[in-house]
Amino acid sequence: MPAISIKGQTMPESPIRKLVPFAERAKEKGRDVIHLNIGQPDIETPQVALDAIHDFTDKVLEYSHSAGFESYRKGLVEYYGKLGIHIGLDEVIVSTGGSEGILFTMNSICDPGDEIIIPEPFYANYNGFGISSGVTVVPVTSRIEESFALPSILEFERLVTSRTKAIMICNPGNPTGYLYSKEELEKLRDLALKYDLFLIADEVYREFAYDGHVPHSILNLDGLEEHAIVIDSVSKRYSMCGARIGCVVSRNAAFMSTVMKYAQARLSPPTIAQVASEAALSTGPEYFDAVKTDYINRRNILVDGLNSIEGVFCPKPTGAFYAMAQLPVDSAERFAQWMLSTFELEGETVMIAPAEGFYATPGMGANQVRLAYVLKPEKLEKAVEIMRAALKRYPGTLL
Amino acid sequence: MPAISIKGQTMPESPIRKLVPFAERAKEKGRDVIHLNIGQPDIETPQVALDAIHDFTDKVLEYSHSAGFESYRKGLVEYYGKLGIHIGLDEVIVSTGGSEGILFTMNSICDPGDEIIIPEPFYANYNGFGISSGVTVVPVTSRIEESFALPSILEFERLVTSRTKAIMICNPGNPTGYLYSKEELEKLRDLALKYDLFLIADEVYREFAYDGHVPHSILNLDGLEEHAIVIDSVSKRYSMCGARIGCVVSRNAAFMSTVMKYAQARLSPPTIAQVASEAALSTGPEYFDAVKTDYINRRNILVDGLNSIEGVFCPKPTGAFYAMAQLPVDSAERFAQWMLSTFELEGETVMIAPAEGFYATPGMGANQVRLAYVLKPEKLEKAVEIMRAALKRYPGTLL
Repeated sequence: MPAISIKGQTMPESPIRKLVPFAERAKEKGRDVIHLNIGQPDIETPQVALDAIHDFTDKVLEYSHSAGFESYRKGLVEYYGKLGIHIGLDEVIVSTGGSEGILFTMNSICDPGDEIIIPEPFYANYNGFGISSGVTVVPVTSRIEESFALPSILEFERLVTSRTKAIMICNPGNPTGYLYSKEELEKLRDLALKYDLFLIADEVYREFAYDGHVPHSILNLDGLEEHAIVIDSVSKRYSMCGARIGCVVSRNAAFMSTVMKYAQARLSPPTIAQVASEAALSTGPEYFDAVKTDYINRRNILVDGLNSIEGVFCPKPTGAFYAMAQLPVDSAERFAQWMLSTFELEGETVMIAPAEGFYATPGMGANQVRLAYVLKPEKLEKAVEIMRAALKRYPGTLL
Repeated sequence: MPAISIKGQTMPESPIRKLVPFAERAKEKGRDVIHLNIGQPDIETPQVALDAIHDFTDKVLEYSHSAGFESYRKGLVEYYGKLGIHIGLDEVIVSTGGSEGILFTMNSICDPGDEIIIPEPFYANYNGFGISSGVTVVPVTSRIEESFALPSILEFERLVTSRTKAIMICNPGNPTGYLYSKEELEKLRDLALKYDLFLIADEVYREFAYDGHVPHSILNLDGLEEHAIVIDSVSKRYSMCGARIGCVVSRNAAFMSTVMKYAQARLSPPTIAQVASEAALSTGPEYFDAVKTDYINRRNILVDGLNSIEGVFCPKPTGAFYAMAQLPVDSAERFAQWMLSTFELEGETVMIAPAEGFYATPGMGANQVRLAYVLKPEKLEKAVEIMRAALKRYPGTLL
């Protein structure tokens, strides 16, 4: 039997799916499972996007241009323009989800063995794209006690080698919910310029910034024209995760022409989903206002609730829809397993994502979990009560 | 300015798009361009698939399972079963186009520097996926004089090294239109078993076999259960290239679980396109009969027409909808450029794909072109007449 690849064997399992077999067994036992582990919002997709799907009248479902439909790319230029981010039509390429945008970016700037420095905890799938493209992900640890603020630039600088090609951030952050300040971004800009590194920002949660915080795009940092690469996606913005439409934005022409080669190799992003994404661009601010109000309410229920549990520490996120919490347990993974396999409160239990998989440094985050607050308030209230009761009963509690 | 990757710089441009700037200039001059360079059929997508798009009623456009919707995968199992290919539900994973299926496959079986032997000329984008996953594509030349039949097994055997992980074929072939016989496939099977190599078959053109020829799937070769990997796609089958839905099929559980890790990293294939693809599975044989009749007619017009031109040799393809032709010119690429930039017949010209980009051996195919017969008969007739006239006038003719 022929062997599969060594890199395939080292590919970590997604931390949000690792416990799926336990959840399935819990359901078989008749328990309801509240899923705080995944970021699939229950928010409705804008009607204008759904209408565009229903009204699709082409008789042949053809490829689009490899860079995406020109009309959609023009719409994206306008979308960014309204945010004060001024780019040209050649500076945006449509990708199959933000995922493909990250893969294209890593492939276009890195050769096997090249390094990208990423503050941890980070979106776990960055690992997968790194393995896929031969990139070594180098973590710099941000701390829960500091709400996952940017680590000091000295800590980054210590990690720069001749193989370092880029620094990558997610802003606002998945899984941290942290929104970087303009000052933090400027520090990263100065570092990128000092060592001539790309600065990659995954800005897919841009619209989800709370409590008066304003998101800043790295595309608006002076001097970073050749260095800034933004990954974007419609998935969370318009609650259309299943569209699989994202984009890569950069003013670096050599970079964009390389991305284009990878884009041509896979022919085109999905056609109908682009039509829906283009329609979604007309979604008005009232949609986002309502959604943000919802998310703030949900965040407060979840985070305030968790912090009212003895021994739990959960910094209040200012963006995205995730929270990281530190639990008074021996191992967050064992606790999460135990909740699914042994615990229930009135027939219900909770599935959470152990945070260790969001760290690249071994052992980090062992007592932390990531929670997505994408469910209805009553579900979140229930989830908090389940966790409160579970932490009292869990055999590995540190209380 | 930070450098892009070396592998990105070596990434070849797609041979079917290389001349696009010349085509654009031809159009600016007011010339009509008949596109024989791309395989975008004008055949209508089955109405049942389009209806499924119009009738999509979900309010939230959610992710599907990373392996694809279970209902669609069950439908695929049934589709293969009807073809006499019996697989289990865990033996098929839905990919974003056949493209992603190839990339996942290469990533799952190869480490950087590993080799895959592929008969050339081959689908040019295999190069792109090879570069993306660090695989070295090793060509074995098939010959136009032999209609691109399988090269002798000795020629393959000579190329096997300790880094060889697989042999990959496209059957029926893009760009060759050649359909491998059962005997040829059995020879490949024996070779794969002898050296414990994977045998990968891109079978996306399965339905397009002509003149009584029958397509054989490598999934039905005895003894190859752990070695056979099939790449499939709805793109050409149902003329829904823009769906970007394909799949990977294999009975090798270790391989499939590694593919699944890559599938999880990119979350899910596109949702609506899967719904449409599932609906398309009910397309009856009368659709394919009509389409095949169309393609046979088109093939005959194009291939017989080309062979009636002095100095042109075009073996008659028995599958897919491409033909490779050898032209009496100094360079097929210069001829193709010249047709776009200088030539016209009654205001029209033709765009063809120089075949050099489909070969990995330098210099091979320099006087060959690939032509797709996916256009209406009258367009193809016109294209033949334009090429006949152009070959008379082209300064680099060898006649």
